[in-house]
Amino acid sequence: MAVRAAVAGASGYAGGEILRLLLAHPEIEIGALTGNSNVGQRLGALQPHLLPLTGRVLAETTAEVLAGHDVVFLALPHGQSAAVAGQLGPDVLVVDMGADFRLQDQTDWHRYYGSPHAGTWPYGLPELPGARAALEGSKRIAVPGCYPTAVSLALFPAYAAGLAEPEAVIVAASGTSGAGRALKPHLLGSEVMGSMSPYGVGGGHRHTPEMIQNLSGVAGERVAVSFTPTLAPMPRGILATCTARAVGGTTEDSIRVAYEKAYADEPFVHLLPEGQWPTTASVQGSNAVQVQVAYDAAVGRIIAISAIDNLTKGTAGGAVQSMNIALGLDETTGLPTIGVAP
Amino acid sequence: MAVRAAVAGASGYAGGEILRLLLAHPEIEIGALTGNSNVGQRLGALQPHLLPLTGRVLAETTAEVLAGHDVVFLALPHGQSAAVAGQLGPDVLVVDMGADFRLQDQTDWHRYYGSPHAGTWPYGLPELPGARAALEGSKRIAVPGCYPTAVSLALFPAYAAGLAEPEAVIVAASGTSGAGRALKPHLLGSEVMGSMSPYGVGGGHRHTPEMIQNLSGVAGERVAVSFTPTLAPMPRGILATCTARAVGGTTEDSIRVAYEKAYADEPFVHLLPEGQWPTTASVQGSNAVQVQVAYDAAVGRIIAISAIDNLTKGTAGGAVQSMNIALGLDETTGLPTIGVAP
Amino acid sequence: MAVRAAVAGASGYAGGEILRLLLAHPEIEIGALTGNSNVGQRLGALQPHLLPLTGRVLAETTAEVLAGHDVVFLALPHGQSAAVAGQLGPDVLVVDMGADFRLQDQTDWHRYYGSPHAGTWPYGLPELPGARAALEGSKRIAVPGCYPTAVSLALFPAYAAGLAEPEAVIVAASGTSGAGRALKPHLLGSEVMGSMSPYGVGGGHRHTPEMIQNLSGVAGERVAVSFTPTLAPMPRGILATCTARAVGGTTEDSIRVAYEKAYADEPFVHLLPEGQWPTTASVQGSNAVQVQVAYDAAVGRIIAISAIDNLTKGTAGGAVQSMNIALGLDETTGLPTIGVAP
Amino acid sequence: MAVRAAVAGASGYAGGEILRLLLAHPEIEIGALTGNSNVGQRLGALQPHLLPLTGRVLAETTAEVLAGHDVVFLALPHGQSAAVAGQLGPDVLVVDMGADFRLQDQTDWHRYYGSPHAGTWPYGLPELPGARAALEGSKRIAVPGCYPTAVSLALFPAYAAGLAEPEAVIVAASGTSGAGRALKPHLLGSEVMGSMSPYGVGGGHRHTPEMIQNLSGVAGERVAVSFTPTLAPMPRGILATCTARAVGGTTEDSIRVAYEKAYADEPFVHLLPEGQWPTTASVQGSNAVQVQVAYDAAVGRIIAISAIDNLTKGTAGGAVQSMNIALGLDETTGLPTIGVAP
Repeated sequence: MAVRAAVAGASGYAGGEILRLLLAHPEIEIGALTGNSNVGQRLGALQPHLLPLTGRVLAETTAEVLAGHDVVFLALPHGQSAAVAGQLGPDVLVVDMGADFRLQDQTDWHRYYGSPHAGTWPYGLPELPGARAALEGSKRIAVPGCYPTAVSLALFPAYAAGLAEPEAVIVAASGTSGAGRALKPHLLGSEVMGSMSPYGVGGGHRHTPEMIQNLSGVAGERVAVSFTPTLAPMPRGILATCTARAVGGTTEDSIRVAYEKAYADEPFVHLLPEGQWPTTASVQGSNAVQVQVAYDAAVGRIIAISAIDNLTKGTAGGAVQSMNIALGLDETTGLPTIGVAP
Repeated sequence: MAVRAAVAGASGYAGGEILRLLLAHPEIEIGALTGNSNVGQRLGALQPHLLPLTGRVLAETTAEVLAGHDVVFLALPHGQSAAVAGQLGPDVLVVDMGADFRLQDQTDWHRYYGSPHAGTWPYGLPELPGARAALEGSKRIAVPGCYPTAVSLALFPAYAAGLAEPEAVIVAASGTSGAGRALKPHLLGSEVMGSMSPYGVGGGHRHTPEMIQNLSGVAGERVAVSFTPTLAPMPRGILATCTARAVGGTTEDSIRVAYEKAYADEPFVHLLPEGQWPTTASVQGSNAVQVQVAYDAAVGRIIAISAIDNLTKGTAGGAVQSMNIALGLDETTGLPTIGVAP
Repeated sequence: MAVRAAVAGASGYAGGEILRLLLAHPEIEIGALTGNSNVGQRLGALQPHLLPLTGRVLAETTAEVLAGHDVVFLALPHGQSAAVAGQLGPDVLVVDMGADFRLQDQTDWHRYYGSPHAGTWPYGLPELPGARAALEGSKRIAVPGCYPTAVSLALFPAYAAGLAEPEAVIVAASGTSGAGRALKPHLLGSEVMGSMSPYGVGGGHRHTPEMIQNLSGVAGERVAVSFTPTLAPMPRGILATCTARAVGGTTEDSIRVAYEKAYADEPFVHLLPEGQWPTTASVQGSNAVQVQVAYDAAVGRIIAISAIDNLTKGTAGGAVQSMNIALGLDETTGLPTIGVAP
Repeated sequence: MAVRAAVAGASGYAGGEILRLLLAHPEIEIGALTGNSNVGQRLGALQPHLLPLTGRVLAETTAEVLAGHDVVFLALPHGQSAAVAGQLGPDVLVVDMGADFRLQDQTDWHRYYGSPHAGTWPYGLPELPGARAALEGSKRIAVPGCYPTAVSLALFPAYAAGLAEPEAVIVAASGTSGAGRALKPHLLGSEVMGSMSPYGVGGGHRHTPEMIQNLSGVAGERVAVSFTPTLAPMPRGILATCTARAVGGTTEDSIRVAYEKAYADEPFVHLLPEGQWPTTASVQGSNAVQVQVAYDAAVGRIIAISAIDNLTKGTAGGAVQSMNIALGLDETTGLPTIGVAP
């Protein structure tokens, strides 16, 4: 019997991507679709690529509309998930693609988001040590941020193996869909094509505490993070360049062994052969992750780089992967693993 | 029991796309992969997105290597398919993604390709009147060119209904993957990004006679075609803008009725609601086609526009669709129908 | 003594481009800059590339602010220029980059713009027969639309020489800056990158009557125009593909002679050597125009193609060129002629 | 009397850019143009944007051809400049845009370039302390690499003021023209559009020792550099994100004062107002540099970011700027200062 899924916030990019994936998922039947300012509009006018759903009309985001589903995906602006989730019963699997339930530390939450902290749910990055077990059978999932997904997968094996000093310097480039569908001048095509630009420089990006939480949890000590995100002239993709000083005695070999061990059995994370580096095009539209790592002996630093699709593995694909685990399905069910390249 | 498929020419863009699709096809097992100058190289170095096949090594394109498969896809330069196909037995399904077996008219062939004409195979555009029947059970398939696919699907309903004068004026924009992976200066990223440019102007493009063949076959008279292709700064996608004078008495309604009739039961072709126009992003990576048509009363012309992904519906997706028909499978088996957007 | 110039509407793309050009113009001193919703903001926050003007603050668009200048450029939304222009004295050179004073035919104006017709000013396309003389010493200039500039320069020599039938079929691709800085979803970078899409199909685009006016004026009879604009994934540039049936007896040679004659002495329009075709990258950021023409004997059609930068020759560069003529300066003063390529 | 300039290597991107700038330079007359494999070809076929030079034919790169000029620009592959320069007289100003004469340390040269070291010329980054004086009247100029230009301008004020620890972590994104016009698969438009990818990871990029040389020279001690370059989907531009631990006692204010002091009188480098960050689009096609700096108190790091056009300030614009100084002209003569944006 099919699993009925509703999507709250179906008009944005995360909502569109979750629908793209659910349409190809063999166990899912798509139920209610809700919007905000777009209530009453045809989905075809908002998401013209979702051709089988063009005639569907967006409903209001209410508990009544979302009731009667097995799974509810929340693709809402940060701070709006908690109120909706509170009205959904404990037997419904609620998958929050916003930030509301990601952070454990209330102080961090207040500093970066301002609103009251709603709590912490099992964290939907199955590759992190311990995460998969917490997701099995869970009825609540906090989907990670796109940058923390890319950064954690690039760096955690180094911290898990005790090879890196607890200060990471990270520069990541993201496609523009990571900024959502908000109508802001700097997101216009005329402005972004042909341009690279940084933002949230100096520790201001909201994903910073989430990276610290993930890496610190693995390292067993607080990892400081210098994070600079940049906007790249492409619709999708994150390339995360992550470096940290190696602890004394670290060698190229010990690094490689640590990464091979971390990803030997992971269905979506591919440690590339030595000398080959990730490209975002290779994972476009797929739930795959490419990772590569090197040791710069001249400066004693580990450089770990990952590429993901911010909307797929970075948001909606990660959400489906975690949903599969929570529902007891095979983790890879319905998820594309091959990027649309070139 | 799985259908074993070989791909000759696995290092190019068409070869990569057919492998991307076959990896997701539930009935297919991927067999031999061959190359040319790349023989002996790992596929992972050439097609880094085909992650499950990274360790596969390209073999030489010989009859021995290609023997023992149920299906052989030929993704070879124009003029090379005939020699290979001649060595494959009559029981093997041979799907040629090159031009060798598309044209019926020897004069056209000689004028545009120069080499001896190899013959004509059933034409792999199932949506064309009569084409589906010819593909059923066939052991040979000529996959259409990418531009003829886009143009024929935009215009044939008008000709089938007798609504258009037999002179079409067509301007199409293609993503750069349509030009293949050849190392030519004008295909460098530095040259193509930010630039639109025409080529093959004045009737010189090799796809012109194929369009004439398709439209004339439907119209029952020779349709003249003025075709101007342009190179657009995107990796994938064709937008074909096709116009023709309407015959006397044609109305908006009669045009709409003709298109609705043509595409009512087609699984991949979507006639958009009135007022909504195709975008190539909407069909990126999918086998879907978006079509829209309008009547410009001031000039008495029909304007029909289609969007496809040149590598998917325009090449490898069309090939799989026709293969499905030839093998007696459901026509949509294994084919993505939702574009990767945004 | 410097010519003092004011710019009304300095926060948009046309306003930014006129300032980029005026900053490099040896005879111009930049005076008042006005905005609309952005009044009171620093220009540096709106036009970060105009580095010498970053500290300038936008004033309100009033007659008082614009008074006391030798030249006033109006970069205002269509329909707003007439009111402002009416308050500027007859001795001020007013250069309208909007549509308000372009069309001669009131019926066309009403059909496409809806508002009362404000009149017709000398038309700022100096290359059109007769236009240059009308601009000399004029105190009012209507800058052409970007598409009409590209299309008229591609086709008028054929009509001037009596070589083309009076029905042109035109498909043009424009960079996104042509749509202005309005915050519309379909102009977001995430939507436009990787996508080609048509709009205003079937005669609906407001530039259509302007093309008809220009070509008909040259042809001496009404020229019907089928015009389809498409949005291309690049910030700047127009590639206009224009075709018309050749009149009986037309030859490749007669066409070439007509174009060579038309552009022999034009400083900005370059008829390319035979076999070389325009690219928008070649003229990016410059006032140059590339034109090429071919004859497709199989269908009896002339295919003329032009490339311009929509913001430079298509808007602000054309405005400066016409201003130079009106002021009695050398026509090329201060205008870039070399594109920023690659 | 005009200064006669020759360009050796006029068919590449650096050669094209130097010609674009020289065409607009009021004191320069363009003399001989030479090529390599393209000898005998028309420049118009290779550099279609250089419209005034389309008829010029490329000569061989020999001492005879280059003789009789006041200035010779060498835009040759690394390792080829020394031989040509050796044949040019001591009174000719030779401006090398390759790497041959940049490095002082022979060991570094051998490690990164392999060939015998040709010597060290005055370094063409006038903004570096002491550099301007060395360029005045010089007859030899080594134009810096594009990445070292961006990185040195972002970081040297921090080192000059003694505010940064001697270990910098740098991640930079470059447009594809930085990789030159070589025909390599990963530079094809189909591969680069929509993709970010790193290369030369782990200290392998040849510009690393040049950065170390520049920063160490300013710091008065050896500065270690971890440098990761990435290829971005745009034709031009470098965005360099540079971080280093601040020395104890450093404050936001002390950093700001250091940068304001460093750039107060520089004509091309713009320290942006606080809160505004560089974008590569803002400096496209211009010799301008945008710099911004922040202090991340949580991790104690300075983050300095610069944006340049790799072909203009990063190569040919820097070359002209240094030539102006060497010839005793105003440093800004003929150089564009406003980016072509959007």
